[in-house]
Amino acid sequence: MALIVQKYGGSSVADAESIKRVAKRIVDTRRAGHDVVVAVSAMGDTTDELLDLANEVAPIPAPRELDMLLSSGERISMALLAMAIHSMGFEARSFTGSQAGMITDAKHGAARIVDVTPVRLREALDEGAIVIVAGFQGFNRDTRDITTLGRGGSDTTAVALAAALGADVCEIYSDVDGIFTADPRVVPRARKLPVVSTEEMLELAANGAKVLYIRAVEYARRHGVVIHARSTFSSSEGTYVLDAQQRSAYIPEGEAMEEPIVAGVATDLSQAKITVIGVPDVPGKAAEIFKIVAKSGANVDMIVQNVSAAATARTDISFTLPKSDATAALKALAADQSDVGFEALVHDDQIGKLSVVGAGMRTNSGVSATLFEALSTAGINIEMISTSEIRISVVLRADDIAEAARVVHTAYGLDGEGDAVVYAGSGR
Amino acid sequence: MALIVQKYGGSSVADAESIKRVAKRIVDTRRAGHDVVVAVSAMGDTTDELLDLANEVAPIPAPRELDMLLSSGERISMALLAMAIHSMGFEARSFTGSQAGMITDAKHGAARIVDVTPVRLREALDEGAIVIVAGFQGFNRDTRDITTLGRGGSDTTAVALAAALGADVCEIYSDVDGIFTADPRVVPRARKLPVVSTEEMLELAANGAKVLYIRAVEYARRHGVVIHARSTFSSSEGTYVLDAQQRSAYIPEGEAMEEPIVAGVATDLSQAKITVIGVPDVPGKAAEIFKIVAKSGANVDMIVQNVSAAATARTDISFTLPKSDATAALKALAADQSDVGFEALVHDDQIGKLSVVGAGMRTNSGVSATLFEALSTAGINIEMISTSEIRISVVLRADDIAEAARVVHTAYGLDGEGDAVVYAGSGR
Repeated sequence: MALIVQKYGGSSVADAESIKRVAKRIVDTRRAGHDVVVAVSAMGDTTDELLDLANEVAPIPAPRELDMLLSSGERISMALLAMAIHSMGFEARSFTGSQAGMITDAKHGAARIVDVTPVRLREALDEGAIVIVAGFQGFNRDTRDITTLGRGGSDTTAVALAAALGADVCEIYSDVDGIFTADPRVVPRARKLPVVSTEEMLELAANGAKVLYIRAVEYARRHGVVIHARSTFSSSEGTYVLDAQQRSAYIPEGEAMEEPIVAGVATDLSQAKITVIGVPDVPGKAAEIFKIVAKSGANVDMIVQNVSAAATARTDISFTLPKSDATAALKALAADQSDVGFEALVHDDQIGKLSVVGAGMRTNSGVSATLFEALSTAGINIEMISTSEIRISVVLRADDIAEAARVVHTAYGLDGEGDAVVYAGSGR
Repeated sequence: MALIVQKYGGSSVADAESIKRVAKRIVDTRRAGHDVVVAVSAMGDTTDELLDLANEVAPIPAPRELDMLLSSGERISMALLAMAIHSMGFEARSFTGSQAGMITDAKHGAARIVDVTPVRLREALDEGAIVIVAGFQGFNRDTRDITTLGRGGSDTTAVALAAALGADVCEIYSDVDGIFTADPRVVPRARKLPVVSTEEMLELAANGAKVLYIRAVEYARRHGVVIHARSTFSSSEGTYVLDAQQRSAYIPEGEAMEEPIVAGVATDLSQAKITVIGVPDVPGKAAEIFKIVAKSGANVDMIVQNVSAAATARTDISFTLPKSDATAALKALAADQSDVGFEALVHDDQIGKLSVVGAGMRTNSGVSATLFEALSTAGINIEMISTSEIRISVVLRADDIAEAARVVHTAYGLDGEGDAVVYAGSGR
């Protein structure tokens, strides 16, 4: 008998029928003899609808009240789920974030978990009940106010509960079968990975893979929680996210040896590129520019500085950032143009980023050569390059991203035998 | 500077526009220099929609979970209301029933308030904030679970807060102007009463007047809370519900003397009549019958027993009860027919009840004669009669109720000079 934490997202509990289907799945797990704790998101688009209402009554809703409002969404879904389980003859009890002991800091809208004291959950489990917990929400001890964890918070709730309760596994359910070697909607030959390492998952999530939230994976890594990403609509195994130690427990020694060099290819069309043209080539100019950008609130990702044209003693600096941050960054830079002394700004939102991620890169040479050769053969131009220990990212034209993902996927030998099954809807 | 508790029902906060209008009203009260505590219901039909969802996922929803579900409705409205006030430049803080210290027993769905410990509300008031509290909900200390107070619970929340905080007045807002001498939709000449006594209000509410819930009035009477029933859509004074002592403080001595004998006429079309025919005229039979009816869960209102027909030594017993209780009562009686020994059951759901209420009845004779004469002149037949110290009720054909209310209203000199203004929608 194991203790299993399960997380169901909004699309898994979008209506009464979906809730009953999820209830059956939970009851099946209980029938198999396991203790079950469930973290659940708000139904379907509830959170967005509540946000719309908030914006109708107040241009800038008070953060404390916004959290009070948004946290009601999970109360609805968790109570309905508990009722549905109850009516199948199983004891189920729902708990709000505060009842579940999800203690956070006081940063409304993006609170961080500081402690988990699941006293009531343990009591309920000891009494044989299935436990349902509101995802996404917590409670601050000092202000005694309700907080929310921000987007993807329900994944974090599930992982934090798994850590605090010492669960055997944290199952994150969505409408996709697990983690794939690429987005199957872009690369039809993508394969589901049976296992992915925590560090690979972090790089994949940070570079466009949407099945798991990076924050939840990070929490799992720190607390040694085993994540199993799987589908609400299928009973087949999904993908286990494991650190090195867990990996050896899950996979026989021989198989672990065959670990592929590249785990997957991630694509990201959410970024824009800004080029600062004609920057005086003197020390400290780059620092000046990125201080201005940071003050505008923008999150810079990749940076490239061209070689200085000797004749002019000026250079160009390009960087990428989320499309939604571009306007503020451009405005801030333009305001300080004469101070910095650059000549012009170019904004390009037709770019895409392709990343190749794999823990095996550390010990294998020639990984980047395969990438560049594959793109070159396909006639695709690389605009920027950035690397980490286990990742190579390139910026390409947005139009080239899909083809690039396919040829790179093939070049690393990742293609499966048939096309992957793709479900409608997103992974949340 | 006074402390004012205000209660806004679901129709007053049905959408973003309504919420902003209510926010403005609250801010106006604050601007006038008063401390304000607001109890708010769920938006529009939210509670009914949540109930529908519950019934879709579970035929008999678990009561604990149903309360968890339904209590989310007020969280939404109260947070939106607090945001709207906040965006008008006033500090506002929302509190759930449990945060507000609304302690109840553990009877889910119909919990009774056992204690109110508004520590956080006092703190917020001391800090100059407007306080918004979720109506309808509370918290049980032993189970640590969320409870709801049942229909009309938000009125009770408001009155209980007013009592606990020692508020100067508890304003109950709805879409009608106050308490009328009769339902203006039935009796166009009905007048708004500036003042009604608590005991009269209790009788009016118990006999069909829908502006205030009887439970809230009862709570107000026990704790000496002054209720002011008024309209969300008008700034004119509504009706004060006062006990004798409060009355003398609000009304100059001379005027109080002119207290009318009859305060109002209430009508009720929600009851049915059951007649048990041919009951053996021996002691204990009536007790037997009403024990059976009580066990079926029905709430009996009026009872009439006909004089025994000497030849047969049998009698008929008629009683009224809510239409929704009739089926269960009939079934229970039919099951025990041979034991009790009655001959037949007759069910009649085409009845109506008309009640005349007035504290002055105690000291004035001839009040009932006026009622009977008015009905007789109009050719309206009386089927049952029941009286209390300050009320006379008669059961009539349902079709006769509207005309009866008009002629009785006239007979007691209650008619106003013009027709009352009637708003669309109900008072909740």
